[in-house]
Amino acid sequence: MSGFRHVVVFRWNEGTTVEQQEDLARRLRALPDAIPEIAAYSVGLDAGVNATSYDFAVVADFADRDAYLVYRDHPAHRAVLDEFVAPITKDRAAVQYAF
Amino acid sequence: MSGFRHVVVFRWNEGTTVEQQEDLARRLRALPDAIPEIAAYSVGLDAGVNATSYDFAVVADFADRDAYLVYRDHPAHRAVLDEFVAPITKDRAAVQYAF
Repeated sequence: MSGFRHVVVFRWNEGTTVEQQEDLARRLRALPDAIPEIAAYSVGLDAGVNATSYDFAVVADFADRDAYLVYRDHPAHRAVLDEFVAPITKDRAAVQYAF
Repeated sequence: MSGFRHVVVFRWNEGTTVEQQEDLARRLRALPDAIPEIAAYSVGLDAGVNATSYDFAVVADFADRDAYLVYRDHPAHRAVLDEFVAPITKDRAAVQYAF
C-alpha cells in the first residue's frame, strides 16, 4: 500500500517482564478493532538478534496523516499508553512518514 | 505477510540537509534490487507531525531471521551504512521482531 506509516520503538525500564510486554502487545493488537482508521498494525517484542536493539516495536499504517492523527489521539489508544506504556517506558523513538 | 521485520529510526547530526537525507533514501531504496532477501522495504523522512520524533525511518520485511541477517551483513547495505549513514548519525534505535 501507499499511505502514512507510524513507527515507534521502546526501551523499557529495568525489571519489565516478558509477561508485561506480551500483555501490552495483546492490548495494542486489539486497537484495530476499536479504531477503523488503522489499515495495518504490527507489534513485536525484540527478537534478540542485535545487542544494541530496543525492546519493543509498533508499526501502524494509515491511509493518510489525518487517519494517523485519529489513532494517535483516540481514547482507546491513549488509555493503553497511559496505563501500560508510560509506566514502563525508559526510552522512546518514533517517526511518521509518507510511504 | 508474516515474517521477520526490521525497524530502525535515526536522529541525524545537526546540519544534515534534506538533500542528504533524500540521497540516502534513494541509495537505500536501491537495495532491494541488490538483495533479493528483502521482501518489502520502506524508507522515509519524518513528516514533522510530532515535535519529539526522530528524523528518518526504515522498515524492512523478510521471510525469516536468516533472510534479515543476509541483508544486515550484505556488502551493498554495509557500503551505504558506512558511507552515508554513519557520518550523519546522532542517535539510532532499532528493533527486529517476528510478525
